[in-house]
Order: sequence, then structure tokens, then C-alpha cells
Amino acid sequence: MPLCSTDSRENPLYRQLAALYEQAIAAGTLAPGMRMPSVRELCQRHHVSLTTALQVLRHLESEGRVEARERVGYFVRGPGGSALPGAREPEVHEPLARDPQVFAGINERISVFLDKARRAGPVPLDLGSAMPAPSLFDAKALNRLAQGLLREQPDILVYGPSAPTTHPEFQQAMARHALTFGVCVAPADIGATHGNSEAVNLALDAVAEPGDVIAVESPTFFGILQAIEVRGLRALEIPCSPRTGMSLEALELAARNEPRLKGVVVVPHLQMPQGSVMPDAHKERLVALCVEHGLALIEDDIYREFVESPHALRPAKAWDRPGDAGQVIYCASLSKSFAPGLRQGWMSAGRWQARVQMLKFARTRNMQTWSQLLAARSVASPAYERHMRRMRAQLRIQREQSAQAVARYFPAGTRLSLPPGGLSLWLELPAGISSTLLYDQALHSGIRIAPGPMFSNTGRYEHFLRLSCGMPFTAQVEEGYRTLGTLMAGQLAEQPLLPRKAA
Amino acid sequence: MPLCSTDSRENPLYRQLAALYEQAIAAGTLAPGMRMPSVRELCQRHHVSLTTALQVLRHLESEGRVEARERVGYFVRGPGGSALPGAREPEVHEPLARDPQVFAGINERISVFLDKARRAGPVPLDLGSAMPAPSLFDAKALNRLAQGLLREQPDILVYGPSAPTTHPEFQQAMARHALTFGVCVAPADIGATHGNSEAVNLALDAVAEPGDVIAVESPTFFGILQAIEVRGLRALEIPCSPRTGMSLEALELAARNEPRLKGVVVVPHLQMPQGSVMPDAHKERLVALCVEHGLALIEDDIYREFVESPHALRPAKAWDRPGDAGQVIYCASLSKSFAPGLRQGWMSAGRWQARVQMLKFARTRNMQTWSQLLAARSVASPAYERHMRRMRAQLRIQREQSAQAVARYFPAGTRLSLPPGGLSLWLELPAGISSTLLYDQALHSGIRIAPGPMFSNTGRYEHFLRLSCGMPFTAQVEEGYRTLGTLMAGQLAEQPLLPRKAA
Repeated sequence: MPLCSTDSRENPLYRQLAALYEQAIAAGTLAPGMRMPSVRELCQRHHVSLTTALQVLRHLESEGRVEARERVGYFVRGPGGSALPGAREPEVHEPLARDPQVFAGINERISVFLDKARRAGPVPLDLGSAMPAPSLFDAKALNRLAQGLLREQPDILVYGPSAPTTHPEFQQAMARHALTFGVCVAPADIGATHGNSEAVNLALDAVAEPGDVIAVESPTFFGILQAIEVRGLRALEIPCSPRTGMSLEALELAARNEPRLKGVVVVPHLQMPQGSVMPDAHKERLVALCVEHGLALIEDDIYREFVESPHALRPAKAWDRPGDAGQVIYCASLSKSFAPGLRQGWMSAGRWQARVQMLKFARTRNMQTWSQLLAARSVASPAYERHMRRMRAQLRIQREQSAQAVARYFPAGTRLSLPPGGLSLWLELPAGISSTLLYDQALHSGIRIAPGPMFSNTGRYEHFLRLSCGMPFTAQVEEGYRTLGTLMAGQLAEQPLLPRKAA
Repeated sequence: MPLCSTDSRENPLYRQLAALYEQAIAAGTLAPGMRMPSVRELCQRHHVSLTTALQVLRHLESEGRVEARERVGYFVRGPGGSALPGAREPEVHEPLARDPQVFAGINERISVFLDKARRAGPVPLDLGSAMPAPSLFDAKALNRLAQGLLREQPDILVYGPSAPTTHPEFQQAMARHALTFGVCVAPADIGATHGNSEAVNLALDAVAEPGDVIAVESPTFFGILQAIEVRGLRALEIPCSPRTGMSLEALELAARNEPRLKGVVVVPHLQMPQGSVMPDAHKERLVALCVEHGLALIEDDIYREFVESPHALRPAKAWDRPGDAGQVIYCASLSKSFAPGLRQGWMSAGRWQARVQMLKFARTRNMQTWSQLLAARSVASPAYERHMRRMRAQLRIQREQSAQAVARYFPAGTRLSLPPGGLSLWLELPAGISSTLLYDQALHSGIRIAPGPMFSNTGRYEHFLRLSCGMPFTAQVEEGYRTLGTLMAGQLAEQPLLPRKAA
């Protein structure tokens, strides 16, 4: 079926074709779970170019209508993804002020949550942390590497690292690993860290002094807000699209108006908690903007390998130019992907490399040779990619089952966009619901959740919630979703006199 | 031979008896290496009480005439210890001002040294670091524990620590370990850290803000000065006796006159670099002084087990009262004693415990379960004490051989007090010698040393030097001492016109 190609600027060919398939999905002609025509089939069927056919599928994917399954093709999305209204774009396009009426330091707020959890003891169901379940990892492959290393270097645990440097084998392995996703850094510019957290903390130490301002995504991972707060910096929250990440317009406004702005922390892939993936064009513009305004771009890239994508995504660091700028401080870790038990992170700090090395040495000295070598051998092992493919497939199933449970049990008006990968869902609940209260109620029922206020100092996320999909969706998990739904319904029922905002 | 007991206040009995043995040693009647009479033998021989006999031996030990060898007895000290003049007591008894003419930030100075070392590449002879050689550890025992742990808990490396707490098995093991040296802390008040460095850094974060003042020993381990400098604190250096450690008079003066003084960092056992051991009465007074003035006492206790002592020494923390004060932040590590490759430290932060936990979580999250369990099993293993005894004996030999080499090859006027344990010697060189210059010259000859200016911001230690005795004293080490001696003689020969200060 050839399509009309008039008016192609307003409504390009690929959009017209995508609209056709959206209608077919809405009508049920293409049912959830069905395989979409392949790129080649679309070309032949509609007499369009390969590029256009690919654009059609990508557009449908970005709209949440279909999803890619690696090496297989595109499939119509299940009801979990489509039965719920999607996440909303932010309403403002300038940096967000914190609301002094609701403001409490993030550390204080988090300490309160953690303290309650501690007092409650271990809970039967932890939907609060963003970690894949141990069963999702390749424990055997890792254990084999570990035993092999202990046999090969029997005194590795009694060697103290004598020079203040990262192990050369680790530097080589990570530099080669970075090449696979389009980043070229010299081995000597790679430093081992205690997880990604220490890397981001060292980056902040290197680029800012107490009183300086750091731009962050809003909402963002609470660990970033904590790190900013504990060293006397101020976090400036920048609105974020749940699809494309940080608003670069708002960031530019901040760069022009905030003289003490020294850097920006960005999670480009599967931004925590919204799950957005920054398009390449945004990454390129972001790097240029940071170069122009002399801002350090601290790139926290721990979820890159969790994105469902037919090709390896490039981080913003790929657009950094080491020669004249080196403006991007790249931070990553194996903690989420392959070996949580090692806590092995790494970083490449561009123009701040020497300062970061000095600060790292002053603070925690060297890393274990043991875990550096184990990490180096892990990323170089064929087991690594095999495992990542399996884990992505398993997590996709868990995300969808979780989304379906949200659709089944949560109050009407709950909003959710299924992210294109990762470990968690970010939900906007009906406006009357307090996730702080829900945290207490859920804990009482043996369920741990991550309430919205953990992710921002603006007070905008009281009725938001992050739920982990890191564990297999068992009957116990399903029961947990039902319990959460009941608790929320109870909250709504007890507020009959409050005017209900439109969801 | 009964002694005269008149005038016992001026010259108590034990002193008279000790003087007798000092004369016998000076005359060569008792030769170096000979076994001293035992406590019981002294009692019978001189008709004195057990207490007096013990006082005699302790006094001779504190004077450097004899030394204790655990479970064996006391021995006359070798010529290495006695052929050199001992270290001098500090001349001032008030906090030391930095000399603005020589001041450079410690990090800048250290980065220059490190950078030179890095550019020189690995050196044939490293006398610069204070680590025992790998051959001094029980690599087999540790490797066996490690392999056992991997077999027993095959998926230990894929478990991410889910709660922001230290592993309970580690807390239990360290609390029981602390009991063996007289410290009682609840398991819940023990936190795992990345080596002792992170513990001291967290302690500083917890007790002080930029601009505050922290009292330190002078000279002190450069890592402590670095940690203070990188967070915008100011170090106030307190004079230290090479025998008994920090001058409490000078500290009290500082506490009275410095309103921004928030804490004091002390290495009570084998203070780095001087090697002093703080007497129990000083520790008790130090704790009381900190309680009185509201100062945090940050106790860095990584060398306690390296002291040659017939009984386990108690840290200052043993005098802390958790009920009403909890004024001592105790920091320790297994990095020097048993497992350098684990980088496993721990701390118990008294009244700052909750704050330290929060800061630790914000900064580096949790520790590896793997290394916590391995450390817990290490300290509980019978191999641990056996190993420490062997290592102390081996280090004693290496210290004495090193001191003998100093006596043989270094210029006249070099001063050295053999410390009662540990990994290094602290030398005062003749006043005309620059250890900064010696650092460059030695590096050129393939030898790394730790020059005096790394250990202070006051500019007082240009002609001081720390040398490691961590490795077995081979012909290569001996040749290194000879080379250092020649280089120093060269420095002195080139300054014929400078007035030479009395050594």
C-alpha cells in the first residue's frame, strides 16, 4: 500500500505509516504480543525506504505501542503498558524552586525512611530497592572467575597496592570495554572507585566548593541529592521529560542566570526514577552547552546496558573532545550489571582526572587488586554479554508483569510509562494519595517501597512512587501489588471532603 | 644482693637496681642479645618484690636498654639501638604555627612527590611505603578462608547489599575482637569502611565543617593532613614526644584558645612516623580532656597489634564512656595486620554513629559482603594470632637490621630511637641535609623514601626521613642504605660554607 507523500514536512511519511499501525493496534487488529512486520516486510509492503521503515518502528516504540526484542523484532505491547495513561511531560521549563513549606534536607528525609525500615527489620517483600534479584545474575560464571583468580594468584589478598594508581589490567579492560560503546579514553585516564557512588562523589568534590550549585534532573536518584547536600553544595532541579530526560532549555536558562552553577549530573540512560533515555542529539547538545558555559558534565551511566536497544547506546562522553575540553566526567559500575557483590566502579574524569586521583587517594586510598582483576576479567568474558542479554529479557518480562499488576490493582488515574529497560517503574498516583503515608502503611504490611519525596527537594512528588521490578514476579509480588492498591484505595476513601484534583 | 632503700622518694629502689643493670650493659658485662634475668630471678637475686622487679625491666625497656620478646623474656638491645643518639623531645610545648615561608598545601607537596614517583616508574627498592612485605603475611591461611567462603556461599558475589548497614557477622566478629583489647562496643555500633582511611575521613566529615580546626600530632601521617586539607579544615599541629606521643599540655592550651577546635586525631600506638606509644595514663587524660572541652577524639589505631608488648594494649576508646559521652571515634583496619588486599576497615563512632552511617551511605554505600565475611572469619581464626606473633618477631629483626645499617652508613649525628614495634624508622638527619633533595637523588638511584616534609605543614622536618622496614633485610636493602648514606655525605660535602648546626 503506497502512502500519500504530500505535505511531507507537516506529516512525514513515516508518521503517516505509524498512524496506520497505531490504529490497527487500537482496533485490536494487531493484538498485544503479536510480532510486527519486520523492516524488510514494511519496505516491500509499503514501497518505502529502509530508513523510513525503521523510523516507523522506532516511532511506534517511542510511543509505547510496540517494543523491540533483541535479535527477534518488534512486538505489539501488552495491556500493562497500554491500559494505563502515560507519564506526563513536566509543566514548567525552567529550574524548579524548592518549596520552603515542604522542604526538609534530603538526608534527614532519607534517614527517617531508612530508620523506619531498620526498626521494622527485614521485610518479606522489598519493592524499594533498585537491584536485580541475585537469581538474575550469572553467579556460576562469576564464582568460577573468582576461584580461578585465587588459584592463579594465591597471594593476591595479601598484596597491598603500593602505588596510588588503579591496576593497569583494570584500566586496559575498561578502556577496551568503553570502545564497544563508542567512548575512547586512554587506559591511564581510568580510575577504579568504590562503586558508582564514590565516582559521582569524587566528581562533585573535584568541580565544586561549598555554596556552589549543581544542576540535577528532577526527580532524580536520592543518592545524588545526598552527595550534593553532605558537602554543602546546592542542588538545582531541572525539569525532565519522562521520555527524553533533562530539559536542555531549562538547563541553559540556569547556566545563564546562576553564576555559581559549576556542573550538572545526568543519568542519560534509564534516568532514575523516570526511566527516560536521552536521544543522541540531546547528548551532543548537552556536551556543547557544558563546554560553552564551562560546566562539568557528570555522567552517571550505570543503566546503559539495561536499555532494550538493537545497538549499543553511546553515552554523552562519546561527544566529549579530550583534546580541547574533556568536559565530561564519566562514571560507571559493574554493581547493577554483573557483580553487585564487588562494588566495583570506575570513572574517567577528563580535565579533572589529576584532581580526582588526588582526592581519591586522600579519601580511600587504593582499591582491592582482587576486585579490579575480577571486574576486568568479567567484562572481557563472553559470559558477560550472554548474561546481559538474558537479564534484559528477564527484566522486560518482570516490568510488564508489574505494569499489568498496577493496571489491575491501583486506583484509576494512576499514570505509568513503561520505560524501555531497567529495574523499576515510576508511578504518578492520583493526587490525593500520600506516598509518605503509604510508605508507613506498606511497611506495616511487610512491603518496602520508595516514596516520591525521596527523589526531589521540590515537594512535587508526594503522590509519586518508585517500585522495583528487579525480582521475578511471583504470587507474593502480585499479592504485594494488591495490598498496595487496597491501601491507596483506603487513603482515597478517607478523604471524601478534600477536593480531588484531576489526575 | 640487697640494695640500699634509703632516699627512696628521690631515687626509688627500682631505679637503683635499673642503674646497676645499665652499667652492666654499658660495660659489656651483659652483651647485646643476651637474655636478662627473669622477674622471678630478679626477686630472688635482689630480695625485691615482684612489682619492683617488673618495674626494673619496664624501666630498662623504656630507656631502650632491653626489649621484651613475647612469652620469652627481656633481652639486651643490640648495637643498632644503642650506637645512635636517640630522638629528641620537642623543644616547644604549645601548638606549632606553620611557617608561611615554607608552607605549601600538603596535597600539593604530596602530589609532587607522587608524580615524580609515577614518572620514574616502579623502583627496585621501595623504602617509602609503610607496608609489610607480602612474604610476612599468611597468604595460605587467607586464601584457604577465601576459597572456603566461595564454596560455602557460591553466590556471595552477586548479592548486592540491600540494607544500608554493615553485615551482622562482621559487626559481631569485630565487637568480640575489640573485647580482647579491652574495648566494649555494641555490634550495632560497628560500621565497615574502605580501609582505615575512609573511617578517619568519615569521622572528620561528621565532626567538623569547613573552616574548623582539627588538632593533629606533629609530625603525623600525611594521609591525615590530606584528609583535613581536602575538606577545607585547618590542621593544628601539636608537638609530640617520640616516646609518649602527643603533648597533652599543648593540646589543652589549644583547646582553651582555639574556639573552632572541633576534634583531635591521635595514633596512640606506634604513632606514624615517630613510633611513640602513648602510656595508659595519657590515654585516660586525653579522653577526659576531650570530654571536658567537647572535642571529638578520632583514634586511628591501625598499629596496635604491632607493638611488642607482653599484654594487649588498650586504645583510648577503652576509657570512653558510651553512656554519657561516646566521645571517641575509634578507627581500625585489617590492611596492615592480616589482609592488605581486602582494604577492610571498621569504626565505632560513639555519639556520632548515626551521622557517620548516613555520611557513609551517601558517599560509598555498602561494603562488599565478601570482604566483610572474610575479615570476620580472619580475626576469629587461630591463624590470626599465630600470624601476628610471627610478624612481630620478623619485623623486630628487620627494624634492628635497618637501625644497624643506619649506624653503619649514615652521617654522624643521625638520630634514631628504635620504636617498640612497627614497620618503619623515623630519622633525624644532620641539620644540613635536605630530605626533599634526597628524595630526588634516591629516586634517581632506584630507591623510594618518605621525606620529612610529607609529615607536617610546619616546615620543621626538612632534615627528617621515614624509612620502611617492612621487607626482609636483604643484600639489596643493605646496598640501598649504603647508597643513601653516600648521597647524604655528598650533600654535606657540597655545603662547606654553611654554618653546621649542632646535631
